[in-house]
Amino acid sequence: MPPIFWLVPISSVLALGFAYYFFKQMMAMDEGTDTMRKIAEHVRKGASAYLRQQYKVVIVVFLVITVLFSFLAYGLGVQNKWVPFAFITGGFFSGLAGFFGMKAATYASGRVANACRTSLNSGLRLAFRSGAVMGLVVVGLVLLDISLWFIVLNHFIAEFAEGYKLMTITAIMLTFGMGASTQALFARVGGGIYTKAADVGADLVGKVEAGIPEDDPRNPATIADNVGDNVGDVAGMGADLFESFAASILATALLGAAAFIGYGSEIQTNAVIAPMLIAAVGTILSIAGVFMVRTREGATQKQLLRSLGFGVNMSAIFIVIASFFILYLLEMPNYLGFWGSIVTGLLAGIAIGQSTEYYTASAYLPTRRIAAASQTGTATLIISGVGTGLISAAVPLFIIVVAITLAYSFATQFSFGVEQLNYGLYGIGIAAVGLLATLGITLATDAYGPIADNAGGNAEMSGLGPEVRKRTDALDALGNTTAATGKGFAIGSAALTALALLASYFEEVRMMFVKFLDMPNELIAGVPAIDASFMDFVNHYEVHLMNPKVIVGILLGVMSVFLFSGLTMNAVGRAAQKMVDEVRRQFATMPGIMEGTTEPDYARCVSISTKGAQQEMMLPSLIALLIPVLVGLVFGVPGVSGLLLGTISSGFALAIFMANAGGAWDNAKKYIEEGHYGGKGSESHKAAVTGDTVGDPFKDTSGPSLNILIKLMVMASVVTVGIAVSYAIL
Amino acid sequence: MPPIFWLVPISSVLALGFAYYFFKQMMAMDEGTDTMRKIAEHVRKGASAYLRQQYKVVIVVFLVITVLFSFLAYGLGVQNKWVPFAFITGGFFSGLAGFFGMKAATYASGRVANACRTSLNSGLRLAFRSGAVMGLVVVGLVLLDISLWFIVLNHFIAEFAEGYKLMTITAIMLTFGMGASTQALFARVGGGIYTKAADVGADLVGKVEAGIPEDDPRNPATIADNVGDNVGDVAGMGADLFESFAASILATALLGAAAFIGYGSEIQTNAVIAPMLIAAVGTILSIAGVFMVRTREGATQKQLLRSLGFGVNMSAIFIVIASFFILYLLEMPNYLGFWGSIVTGLLAGIAIGQSTEYYTASAYLPTRRIAAASQTGTATLIISGVGTGLISAAVPLFIIVVAITLAYSFATQFSFGVEQLNYGLYGIGIAAVGLLATLGITLATDAYGPIADNAGGNAEMSGLGPEVRKRTDALDALGNTTAATGKGFAIGSAALTALALLASYFEEVRMMFVKFLDMPNELIAGVPAIDASFMDFVNHYEVHLMNPKVIVGILLGVMSVFLFSGLTMNAVGRAAQKMVDEVRRQFATMPGIMEGTTEPDYARCVSISTKGAQQEMMLPSLIALLIPVLVGLVFGVPGVSGLLLGTISSGFALAIFMANAGGAWDNAKKYIEEGHYGGKGSESHKAAVTGDTVGDPFKDTSGPSLNILIKLMVMASVVTVGIAVSYAIL
Repeated sequence: MPPIFWLVPISSVLALGFAYYFFKQMMAMDEGTDTMRKIAEHVRKGASAYLRQQYKVVIVVFLVITVLFSFLAYGLGVQNKWVPFAFITGGFFSGLAGFFGMKAATYASGRVANACRTSLNSGLRLAFRSGAVMGLVVVGLVLLDISLWFIVLNHFIAEFAEGYKLMTITAIMLTFGMGASTQALFARVGGGIYTKAADVGADLVGKVEAGIPEDDPRNPATIADNVGDNVGDVAGMGADLFESFAASILATALLGAAAFIGYGSEIQTNAVIAPMLIAAVGTILSIAGVFMVRTREGATQKQLLRSLGFGVNMSAIFIVIASFFILYLLEMPNYLGFWGSIVTGLLAGIAIGQSTEYYTASAYLPTRRIAAASQTGTATLIISGVGTGLISAAVPLFIIVVAITLAYSFATQFSFGVEQLNYGLYGIGIAAVGLLATLGITLATDAYGPIADNAGGNAEMSGLGPEVRKRTDALDALGNTTAATGKGFAIGSAALTALALLASYFEEVRMMFVKFLDMPNELIAGVPAIDASFMDFVNHYEVHLMNPKVIVGILLGVMSVFLFSGLTMNAVGRAAQKMVDEVRRQFATMPGIMEGTTEPDYARCVSISTKGAQQEMMLPSLIALLIPVLVGLVFGVPGVSGLLLGTISSGFALAIFMANAGGAWDNAKKYIEEGHYGGKGSESHKAAVTGDTVGDPFKDTSGPSLNILIKLMVMASVVTVGIAVSYAIL
Repeated sequence: MPPIFWLVPISSVLALGFAYYFFKQMMAMDEGTDTMRKIAEHVRKGASAYLRQQYKVVIVVFLVITVLFSFLAYGLGVQNKWVPFAFITGGFFSGLAGFFGMKAATYASGRVANACRTSLNSGLRLAFRSGAVMGLVVVGLVLLDISLWFIVLNHFIAEFAEGYKLMTITAIMLTFGMGASTQALFARVGGGIYTKAADVGADLVGKVEAGIPEDDPRNPATIADNVGDNVGDVAGMGADLFESFAASILATALLGAAAFIGYGSEIQTNAVIAPMLIAAVGTILSIAGVFMVRTREGATQKQLLRSLGFGVNMSAIFIVIASFFILYLLEMPNYLGFWGSIVTGLLAGIAIGQSTEYYTASAYLPTRRIAAASQTGTATLIISGVGTGLISAAVPLFIIVVAITLAYSFATQFSFGVEQLNYGLYGIGIAAVGLLATLGITLATDAYGPIADNAGGNAEMSGLGPEVRKRTDALDALGNTTAATGKGFAIGSAALTALALLASYFEEVRMMFVKFLDMPNELIAGVPAIDASFMDFVNHYEVHLMNPKVIVGILLGVMSVFLFSGLTMNAVGRAAQKMVDEVRRQFATMPGIMEGTTEPDYARCVSISTKGAQQEMMLPSLIALLIPVLVGLVFGVPGVSGLLLGTISSGFALAIFMANAGGAWDNAKKYIEEGHYGGKGSESHKAAVTGDTVGDPFKDTSGPSLNILIKLMVMASVVTVGIAVSYAIL
């Protein structure tokens, strides 16, 4: 192992250390008045209750899958013996990251509200650094797990043929991503259902029927609603990006091992650790970036955004420079080309973020047109939102198309022949790594949003002064903007990661294929043999577009996406209904609530949302886990290959459509509330409120869940590839 | 040419003859009172005005495309010299079918209303036979054009190498479908925008603002609304299925020529004419079926449906039997297997129709759940509709997956190797033909719907007695049911046709590939050589799933679908806005309208809807036509192959989602109007009305337009294949 590799565990320890430092710093702050304390504790308890319940379910699922993997590995012998363990650690570390992230967020919000009593700057800094706890724990634990496994496997796996060792190691490590994926599935789907069930339920009875304002302590569902922000936007988003970060690094490592198998041990090793090093340096830069975020008192919305942007952008600029030196120092062949791929990935991320903002912010035409459509009623507002949302999905798809083409072209020096395929796939992988390298700080920005939101809620419920509320409002508004671009970033990185995973799926099948044909020498005979076996592989498995199994697979992929989205959408409806019943029951049986003399039973609402989310997440999750296995069992490798392409392409499009339509309706409502088209209380406003509620499950449940689906289906196919290869029926 | 071929032109003449007979029969009926006459004339004039305007635009588009094709053929030499002519006849015949169909429908509706003054049976018979004019003209003209071209090309094309002649002929004839596709594009997109702009506009001002009932003669947009039914549901649906019918026969003929090239001239010819003969016999059976439709006075809704179903089902049963004898008499190898493919296609069509009914009829749980969601407001109703619509898309996708797998398996005798690929693709093609064989009577059922609807409108506006109105209502309700299953049938057949077309795209590229490599002998060296060249083709063009161009193509395909749907959705919004402005203007400037003393300016509303539709249809149509060419130019054959699979799979899913969600909202509203959840005028009803309006462009504009998109993109790729093969940049 080259000495420079040790930068990876070092950066991991640094990230975790600073996370701990920021956490301690935050915990040392005062939590404010008794009311503030009490409210924060309610939310904290609710969030913990949810996590406990969720982990119970997840542990059962993990046990079942581990048994399956053990059977595949030790019973049928179609899987590596390390897989069950790598799977478990992936899930464990992801769960741990979620646990710490949510703890930090729920401890922080009350303190942020209290800090705003002093100054805007201290509020911003505290909120952002508390978000950074989540960001740094996520990247720290990913890098820790990768480092540990890489060291362990390097020790245990023998080099039985040149270049084969690293391919085996990276192939095993990739299954670590499956653990993270499974954890993320439940976090995103469960969290997404929880947050919107609570939100819709609280609004329908509290605001509409009882006529009490948002965040009113008399609403029994109000704590559940606040818990939901943490559950969905902190834990869900964190698990999602934990997985993207891990999977993009691991997939690229495998692609590197495959692409440079004929170049000798040193170059191959360098190609494998390059993505890890880029992520490590990006993590260190993220820590530096966190320290750069500060603002002065009385800052405008724009200035606040600039403060936040300054840290993020500086990290990004430095990672561009640093990754050039990393590739150069590793003496990678065509280092300039691969560097071009990295820059492409970064630019694609920025472009997708920009397009998200354009289509969802009320400063631009699309959202204003949707707002204007409210003048002719709810129906035209919905039609306009759907139409614009559909169009908006085309833009990031086009950006990804350009990004893939460029990343591939740079990596292959603009050659599209099959003999260059390996380098091109590595280029796509490393583009995803480039996009995610500074995740530490990007995720801090994402986690900042719900913390600021909850701080605002706390300030409102505790009746703090108008000066304080103005400050928390400013922080909250900023959080809404970062949330929108954060969603774009999450989807874009999920798509690139899924494509890198897909490439590594093909590599895995090819490895099995080579073994399958008893031609291990082919694999190690240097570059030309590897290139030739690509087309052998195509010919053997017929993963070409005329094969009906491929076509059927693509159709099944699209089918999965629509089914999954529909199920999550309906799940919110059903779970919200249960919440509505409970809130109505409490109002009816406890008359003291409305008079303010009795405290509503918050815990019961929290528990209903928790149970509802757990029940409702099972069916869509099972579908996501089982379909790849079933398709592999029936249609084999060509069927699965088609399935994955169908899922990724249509899932990506549907995710953006949903996220953007939901975001645009939300902001169209806010735009009207600013006084346009009659302002608050007008008919236009009523239409916009309905649009916003429709958009809730779009943007916070079904849309983000698709991020997981497109990655998980590939992951599940990767780890069960033995079934498709050896036991396909047709 | 075998003598049995002459059955094709004979069936064509029979279809056209009976169409003329039914038309004359209908024209001989009395049109009723002066008011009835006047109203019918308004609608007729409006429809004619629309068609005239549309044909003007279409002629320009056809001129441009013909010039392009001529340049490709005579300038660059990458296309057959017959293509521009085949293209033009396809467009001309499709336009002619639309013209006659719409004439018949608009002449019929008043007469049907009048016939209902006598008896229900005479009303049903007249409406259905008038619908049959459209059905029979469509299939008659398709078969006429196919017969003519087959005879002409047989005369002119030389057999320069064995089996090559029929491949050339069928390849040329396929471009006839491109003309039909282009015509259908404008008919569906333009018609879809027209009908919903008029509908939404009429409702928003008339019903909501002025408070006058549906179909009130004082509403200036009411005639435009009635015209819209004819424009969208008669002309649009007719052009759509004209194309499916033509393309499925022609694609299958080409696939037959390719599959049986090594079997000697006689078998190859039989394989080519088999789909034509099945369609011809299906047409004759359709005529027989039309005569079987009759009912007795005072029939219930169920009995009426059974009468209609009897004719359709008898035709279907007989085509199953007849197609067995056709294949047997043609001495086709594996005739039993191909017959299995045909039966599979038919069963798939029925199953998709059933699933459409399940997800959209208020007799079943899904629609009732959506209706129940109205109790908690518009937002939950919309969420529930979207969720259920998304889930409902999974079912037909699964049916098509099973159908493809079975049709392929029967055709290849359950062998999935590449050496059987040709037969499998022929099997998929002939399954599509089986589904569409009895289109004559199926389309009669579709066209019946708007005729009955307009008859009801006419009866309402003319103030006919309650007994008559009860009869027209019964006919109209029946039309709503047939419309829903008709939509399922149209989408299902479009998907199967598109897949058959895709297979023929691969055949076309393979033909060019063989010529490209200067290996004409390969092509004619019998079965083994052909089979081998399949993988040569895959290897040469790299149409495998690891090729980034294929992946990019799939993403671009999904992108096209979302962009196209978004644009058509927004187009309705904009066109409706213009209608709203005009109706408001008339009410403001002509006070006599509301008093009933001045006749509103119907013609102006018709002309606004017409112009709006023409303007708005240009951008989405251009996208559909240009994207395949541009993708071919940049990414070549692998890019286009991916593009088509991405378009077909996601377009099919989105089309069903939109059609079913829209249909379910519509019927949820009707269910509430029957007295559930508070009935008419309740809050639930208001929510359901909003849902219905949202669903309008879903089910009648964007959804059906996608049928065309998925076929047209393949067609456009087929006819411009020379560009992708010879001029691809990457």
